[in-house]
Amino acid sequence: MQVPAAAEAVGRKGFGWAAVTIREWEQGQRIEGFVALRKLERKEHPGGERLILEFGDQSGRIDGVMWDGYEEIVDRLVVGDVVKVRGVVGSFRDKAQVRVELIRPAHSDEARPEDFLPRSPIDPAELAKEFDECIESLTNPHLREMMNRLFGSGDLREKYLAAAAGKLWHHNTVGGLVEHSLNVVRLCEFACEMYEDLDRDLLVCGALLHDLGKIEQYEMKAAIDYSTEGRLVGHINTGDFRVARAITEIEGFPAELAHALRHLIVSHQGELDKGSPVVPMMPEAFVLNYADELDSKMGALRRIAEKTGDADWSEYVNLIGRYIYFGHRKAGETARES
Amino acid sequence: MQVPAAAEAVGRKGFGWAAVTIREWEQGQRIEGFVALRKLERKEHPGGERLILEFGDQSGRIDGVMWDGYEEIVDRLVVGDVVKVRGVVGSFRDKAQVRVELIRPAHSDEARPEDFLPRSPIDPAELAKEFDECIESLTNPHLREMMNRLFGSGDLREKYLAAAAGKLWHHNTVGGLVEHSLNVVRLCEFACEMYEDLDRDLLVCGALLHDLGKIEQYEMKAAIDYSTEGRLVGHINTGDFRVARAITEIEGFPAELAHALRHLIVSHQGELDKGSPVVPMMPEAFVLNYADELDSKMGALRRIAEKTGDADWSEYVNLIGRYIYFGHRKAGETARES
Amino acid sequence: MQVPAAAEAVGRKGFGWAAVTIREWEQGQRIEGFVALRKLERKEHPGGERLILEFGDQSGRIDGVMWDGYEEIVDRLVVGDVVKVRGVVGSFRDKAQVRVELIRPAHSDEARPEDFLPRSPIDPAELAKEFDECIESLTNPHLREMMNRLFGSGDLREKYLAAAAGKLWHHNTVGGLVEHSLNVVRLCEFACEMYEDLDRDLLVCGALLHDLGKIEQYEMKAAIDYSTEGRLVGHINTGDFRVARAITEIEGFPAELAHALRHLIVSHQGELDKGSPVVPMMPEAFVLNYADELDSKMGALRRIAEKTGDADWSEYVNLIGRYIYFGHRKAGETARES
Amino acid sequence: MQVPAAAEAVGRKGFGWAAVTIREWEQGQRIEGFVALRKLERKEHPGGERLILEFGDQSGRIDGVMWDGYEEIVDRLVVGDVVKVRGVVGSFRDKAQVRVELIRPAHSDEARPEDFLPRSPIDPAELAKEFDECIESLTNPHLREMMNRLFGSGDLREKYLAAAAGKLWHHNTVGGLVEHSLNVVRLCEFACEMYEDLDRDLLVCGALLHDLGKIEQYEMKAAIDYSTEGRLVGHINTGDFRVARAITEIEGFPAELAHALRHLIVSHQGELDKGSPVVPMMPEAFVLNYADELDSKMGALRRIAEKTGDADWSEYVNLIGRYIYFGHRKAGETARES
Amino acid sequence: MQVPAAAEAVGRKGFGWAAVTIREWEQGQRIEGFVALRKLERKEHPGGERLILEFGDQSGRIDGVMWDGYEEIVDRLVVGDVVKVRGVVGSFRDKAQVRVELIRPAHSDEARPEDFLPRSPIDPAELAKEFDECIESLTNPHLREMMNRLFGSGDLREKYLAAAAGKLWHHNTVGGLVEHSLNVVRLCEFACEMYEDLDRDLLVCGALLHDLGKIEQYEMKAAIDYSTEGRLVGHINTGDFRVARAITEIEGFPAELAHALRHLIVSHQGELDKGSPVVPMMPEAFVLNYADELDSKMGALRRIAEKTGDADWSEYVNLIGRYIYFGHRKAGETARES
Amino acid sequence: MQVPAAAEAVGRKGFGWAAVTIREWEQGQRIEGFVALRKLERKEHPGGERLILEFGDQSGRIDGVMWDGYEEIVDRLVVGDVVKVRGVVGSFRDKAQVRVELIRPAHSDEARPEDFLPRSPIDPAELAKEFDECIESLTNPHLREMMNRLFGSGDLREKYLAAAAGKLWHHNTVGGLVEHSLNVVRLCEFACEMYEDLDRDLLVCGALLHDLGKIEQYEMKAAIDYSTEGRLVGHINTGDFRVARAITEIEGFPAELAHALRHLIVSHQGELDKGSPVVPMMPEAFVLNYADELDSKMGALRRIAEKTGDADWSEYVNLIGRYIYFGHRKAGETARES
Repeated sequence: MQVPAAAEAVGRKGFGWAAVTIREWEQGQRIEGFVALRKLERKEHPGGERLILEFGDQSGRIDGVMWDGYEEIVDRLVVGDVVKVRGVVGSFRDKAQVRVELIRPAHSDEARPEDFLPRSPIDPAELAKEFDECIESLTNPHLREMMNRLFGSGDLREKYLAAAAGKLWHHNTVGGLVEHSLNVVRLCEFACEMYEDLDRDLLVCGALLHDLGKIEQYEMKAAIDYSTEGRLVGHINTGDFRVARAITEIEGFPAELAHALRHLIVSHQGELDKGSPVVPMMPEAFVLNYADELDSKMGALRRIAEKTGDADWSEYVNLIGRYIYFGHRKAGETARES
Repeated sequence: MQVPAAAEAVGRKGFGWAAVTIREWEQGQRIEGFVALRKLERKEHPGGERLILEFGDQSGRIDGVMWDGYEEIVDRLVVGDVVKVRGVVGSFRDKAQVRVELIRPAHSDEARPEDFLPRSPIDPAELAKEFDECIESLTNPHLREMMNRLFGSGDLREKYLAAAAGKLWHHNTVGGLVEHSLNVVRLCEFACEMYEDLDRDLLVCGALLHDLGKIEQYEMKAAIDYSTEGRLVGHINTGDFRVARAITEIEGFPAELAHALRHLIVSHQGELDKGSPVVPMMPEAFVLNYADELDSKMGALRRIAEKTGDADWSEYVNLIGRYIYFGHRKAGETARES
Repeated sequence: MQVPAAAEAVGRKGFGWAAVTIREWEQGQRIEGFVALRKLERKEHPGGERLILEFGDQSGRIDGVMWDGYEEIVDRLVVGDVVKVRGVVGSFRDKAQVRVELIRPAHSDEARPEDFLPRSPIDPAELAKEFDECIESLTNPHLREMMNRLFGSGDLREKYLAAAAGKLWHHNTVGGLVEHSLNVVRLCEFACEMYEDLDRDLLVCGALLHDLGKIEQYEMKAAIDYSTEGRLVGHINTGDFRVARAITEIEGFPAELAHALRHLIVSHQGELDKGSPVVPMMPEAFVLNYADELDSKMGALRRIAEKTGDADWSEYVNLIGRYIYFGHRKAGETARES
Repeated sequence: MQVPAAAEAVGRKGFGWAAVTIREWEQGQRIEGFVALRKLERKEHPGGERLILEFGDQSGRIDGVMWDGYEEIVDRLVVGDVVKVRGVVGSFRDKAQVRVELIRPAHSDEARPEDFLPRSPIDPAELAKEFDECIESLTNPHLREMMNRLFGSGDLREKYLAAAAGKLWHHNTVGGLVEHSLNVVRLCEFACEMYEDLDRDLLVCGALLHDLGKIEQYEMKAAIDYSTEGRLVGHINTGDFRVARAITEIEGFPAELAHALRHLIVSHQGELDKGSPVVPMMPEAFVLNYADELDSKMGALRRIAEKTGDADWSEYVNLIGRYIYFGHRKAGETARES
Repeated sequence: MQVPAAAEAVGRKGFGWAAVTIREWEQGQRIEGFVALRKLERKEHPGGERLILEFGDQSGRIDGVMWDGYEEIVDRLVVGDVVKVRGVVGSFRDKAQVRVELIRPAHSDEARPEDFLPRSPIDPAELAKEFDECIESLTNPHLREMMNRLFGSGDLREKYLAAAAGKLWHHNTVGGLVEHSLNVVRLCEFACEMYEDLDRDLLVCGALLHDLGKIEQYEMKAAIDYSTEGRLVGHINTGDFRVARAITEIEGFPAELAHALRHLIVSHQGELDKGSPVVPMMPEAFVLNYADELDSKMGALRRIAEKTGDADWSEYVNLIGRYIYFGHRKAGETARES
Repeated sequence: MQVPAAAEAVGRKGFGWAAVTIREWEQGQRIEGFVALRKLERKEHPGGERLILEFGDQSGRIDGVMWDGYEEIVDRLVVGDVVKVRGVVGSFRDKAQVRVELIRPAHSDEARPEDFLPRSPIDPAELAKEFDECIESLTNPHLREMMNRLFGSGDLREKYLAAAAGKLWHHNTVGGLVEHSLNVVRLCEFACEMYEDLDRDLLVCGALLHDLGKIEQYEMKAAIDYSTEGRLVGHINTGDFRVARAITEIEGFPAELAHALRHLIVSHQGELDKGSPVVPMMPEAFVLNYADELDSKMGALRRIAEKTGDADWSEYVNLIGRYIYFGHRKAGETARES
């Protein structure tokens, strides 16, 4: 198993213990180290009770079980935090499972929660560079000024580059937001080549900013979860607010352009019942909606494909109510080889 | 016919012509004066063409027809503007109709478009007073500061008091927004008496601010119509933006309170497919949603009742897909009298 | 733990055993007494099987487990009946749990099932008084005669006062129907103050009678469950039938008033797909629908708030597909205290 | 043109004028007689106004126009009443049209409104006989007693035999209710032959009674229209009430049978959003729902087929959002002939 | 317990072991034989793991458990295949359960998977005969030629007679397709008797062919499951393709007839969101849709009735979101007996 | 006014009359020539009746009126056919209108209906070339053989190149199908560059063939209308049939590839209620669905933009229930110029 380059760049080495990630753990191995606690459940058995656990880090997830000796510590274990575990990697029903012997919360100087989040497979430096170039490429002076005002000072650029675009479904990684947004930019730019009269700069800004509010949408400790603000206000409005405020601070920003840009953000989900308070009413808004849909779906399908492995059909995917078929890929390969 | 007191208070007398409103025009009378142009359509007849018109002012609407002599002026007539008309009040199919002899756009120093809009039946001074008292009554210092920051300086208070809450369906008048909002406040306060643990101040602010974005939603010239910003961004987001910005300017405003207040605004339509990007998730948000629904519907039904007159059943109401019954009122009166 | 006054008033003392309710049971205590059997499930464990149980009474619910010794009695245990249990109160996964040693069905002279149902927190005498006053307050002679005919003789008044308004979601208690209905009355009366031209007497009757059919909807033994009539005919029709029959027995009852009152009952769910065969078509019907919605939701949210305790967010509420937020209450309290 | 036998049986001859129905009027003919007034509209033309009319009787409909001379009478003409007209049959846009010279309301001793309604193509005596035989055929003594109690005395049998099953869509004729119900009986009886364990008597009663409430649903003067009771209460509940009341008057009527029969009535629309307050939950209820759907649709399609004439495709049918194809019938005939 | 005649006719005797089906297994009996493996799950218990199994054959299903000794064979056991088992029939929670001692996959010469599928209760010879007679009865020469071309040569007739019409919900048996289709034919023929102008031959062909694509829809080994083609293409299109191809091979087949027949097939689900790409637009298409709905539902309800046994109410039926009531059957029987 | 190059290439000159298209007709000009008859309606006026007409050709549409002299010919005029007209171009309500003096059906040797259809703005030769290159580019031998079999001989290629992709909404032109399909190919190819593991050849074939059935969907005389086959069978199934049949004729075509390709075709509408009998279940199917949606919408928006002209907002677009905004384009231009 290999650790992706991006992961190493932000690795946990600063804390002085070997960066052996979960994907590197092997059957039968004794392990000891820091991981994120993703689940914790007490489960009864006739003779008593045991802990059912799930651990994670940037490289993946693994189940755990602890049969006894946890009574004194269990109330201090918090899902979403980093814990230190000691145990042996075994297996249960064909899945790897750590039989935990010792567990305790990590001290704040032992580990940074954010180091345990999954990360975008793309090098963060590359994503940042591409993001900056996108802004550079704008020729509309108003839009360019707005983007510089948003990201040029303060910490928003840093937050943007670190944010996830989803909790579970797609681009649910550190860097997922910028990775997803740049993909959407790329699709929108291609649409500008194909269809005349699209406002390229407007569309590029809409693509970069459509999910801006995801920064507030999630709490990212050692796992991604919805924040209170994310649930109560929603990413459409937290993002729209940042953009609208930046615009009001710029003298001479044309009103039509302001309305149009905000429209792209607030309508990007495409339909009221998907959570957009208004539906797309501009050609650019339709393009952005389809580009967002396509890249989100492709992100989710990549994740499903990985989970499906060599099988022809995925397991049932509840969120979209269907199975996904990958069996033709083999047929395709065979055909190309012949 | 009587002109309501409120209308007189803001009347058109300053412009030096008799404040005879449309409701006062009588059959057979020669009239000359300023009215809002609400509709303009060319309609063919075998020998040629005529203009089909609709005029309005704060007191009501009347149809018009012009058979000839309009060719040179017609291109300068704009729906939504004020026009000066001369003609005779006749009738057509049991409806009053002005046979127009002369028509021209009003000069800007002859009439103010806003004087021709329908007005809330409640005295604007009374609405303003009640609105101010509502803010005075807040005991939560954060919310009170926020309200003062929003309405204490600048022109937002004035705009709020003049805005409409709807284009056609309910409270579609100058003053409609504050009239509707104060009704919602009243319903919410009653809910606070009935149900424990509701945050009264939060709810009152939510009630006053839920439709704040209607200020941008409409263009009010001589008739109410959607603005470009209203269509593209929507009143949920234009209102939420104002509130969110005011909050960020207040030091020490509690984050939970900010999220909760914004939640009331963005969830007040109650369901995604009614245009709220998030659904109600707090007891106060449910209360606000039902209070808003009830007062909107009552406003619309009052309008329908007026239009229905003495008939038992209204005409078919497209927006809600049904007829409305008023026939029991007579039965009720009879019973009480007996 | 305290037993609410209302519970005591109808307590189980007549049967000669101490009225120690489930909420009074304490950790480690040996208990013996009568409770309602709410669930019974056989659950396998490697060495065999055990009984998983849930008990309830008017004060609450508790889990139970029985590891052996039940084989001869288990077939005579019926969910919904009263049982006599003996055991020790322990805990399992932080929840109280009775380890049962002996269990048997109660004899009919030992306990009345209805004594084990949860009860409205409001004193039943107070509810009855308020209900009677409501009827007294009617000035429409037809409606008053109808109410007297329905409730003046026979056992309907008693049934009405004892009925629940829900199985699980809201007002699922003895007395829940009248408690809920009186709340709806109160909301409707407030609407009559706010909006002119509403027929107050009609609306009050509609509010009191809208859920009348809940009397048939449920079987209330020691737990509330749907009856066969409730499922097959539904409470809209069982209630409408009682009212329609009472009306036909009254000479001179105006037809419009009859249609209007029945309309309030049959349309009170507000939409076809919520189970009303017709939608609201009268101002009073809209008011009743919103009042019913509001009080039902507030009842459900009170229950959810209790279950949520001190947490900011409730667990996921399946029936309405969302989490509920209570975290602002603390913020509100803090603000008021400061 | 031929008058169907059934029409003649109930003809207008008793009033002393020749029973020449609208279908018998011929181009160029002078006519004078009684017809139902189905529509009345004033319509402007440059020189003034004219009346646009529609007349009907049991045999069909015809347009009318009246250019002048109606001013004194027009306010006394009521849609749905019988009028006496004199004029000449001409044509307009390939459709027959009466050019009216004189028109006045009919006196009550000149014509009975019900004689002008369209009538079921089946002989009413035959329908009555089949209906009675259906009741005779019941072997369940409870159901038989209930049917006899409903129809054996009083005027319900007469009303049932005269009622329509629809206003426009299907079986919108005098006798339409019993014609439709007997068709549904026939389909249900066939289902009883095909599927074991269906309760034939229960199903036959459900089929006969499912639309019983249509008696109150419509006002049948000279045209069928919704009644106030029909709109406010709905035919599900007016029908269920009659049946439920009859049942309560029968001693020893089994409760399960009562619930089951009422279930068939209240669930017969099949889905909540089609207006049934509960969905089918018994095999018999599913059968009844499909039988009702099939016969309603076949009734509507027969009407559409007549209107379509020889064309391959019907006009667009708004209620079901599609065109209907009849072009294969010719292909079928050709094939059979060859 | 009795083996139905149909099952015996196609029994497993050819393989030389006693045709003792699962329904004949008795409590306490040692059994050894071939069954279909329907489920296989590893389930943890504190001391380790056990296999949870389900076996089936044409007569029914039974649970199984295997506590140890399966490690070497478990990876070769495939759900849907035939296995040989040895064990003792016991019970667990009132349900029969085989405690398995030995299990292994069957060799291909030991058993045919198709012998283990449930079978239509109707004699296959009878179904085949009725199917052939249906085709014989066609008088439209084009349709007759098409049916003969489809089924006269090749293996389609055999496949059709063996196919299932469902996986779980209705007619999920060998022979289920033809059983269901012939029922639909019968309902359609009755409709032709009741309603004039229906094209009987077209409708009979539509009824026989509407589910033709179910042949590709399922993989039938020892259990019915969706095939890849069934999921990706769907039975509407696999069936339509066969019919359309047969038609193109017939010279002189009328185009309208071809369109009409294909229309019956592609529209038979009745609504787009049920999976038909076009909605019914011919009277025959409506008839077929209702006939299909009715027979499918009756098939499903028969299955539910069997599972419900003597209880009044079925368990909750997820697919249609309701409980089913059978309690009136007893009431009906009692009434008839009295 | 300019005639587009493509239009000239296929012009009507072969018939020996001047190729002056409708867009070239000028105010006050006497015209005589052949046009398609798009609408024909008799409309009453007080003195009688007139014909209201609409004419069209490849360049556009124009209204017409004929006041008299049409009685003898009117029954021979068929909407969708070519007619010869003589008259004068005038105007009515700011719209051009031909005052027709003479009209008659064109003889079949005078004009070809297809010459009067609107045409794709792209040169047909270019479209054909690009289409051929697309097929050339396939490296999967099976898919290439299938495409060659479909289009290599016979007239399908010619039909494909001439077909429209819509009646009114988008690409409703001769050549519209291939223009739209090639756009979808381009979008899909870009997706293949962005997302790994997509089967490019499969996707290209899916893009070219997804709307193949549009060939049968429409009747293209002088105007595009739905064919009987198009309505009854639908383009999903007429297209799928052609592809499925071609596949069965190819030996060794892999089954998985066949299912996958057909899946792309039948699922391309994306949802059941948009008319696809199965939903997308492969990554390629999602890509195709979004690409199709995007290009269709862009096609429709281009049409709406043309109709909107210089206005900021389009008229209300019924099909998608909203207005479309183009006002930002001017703002964008201004910004770029400054």
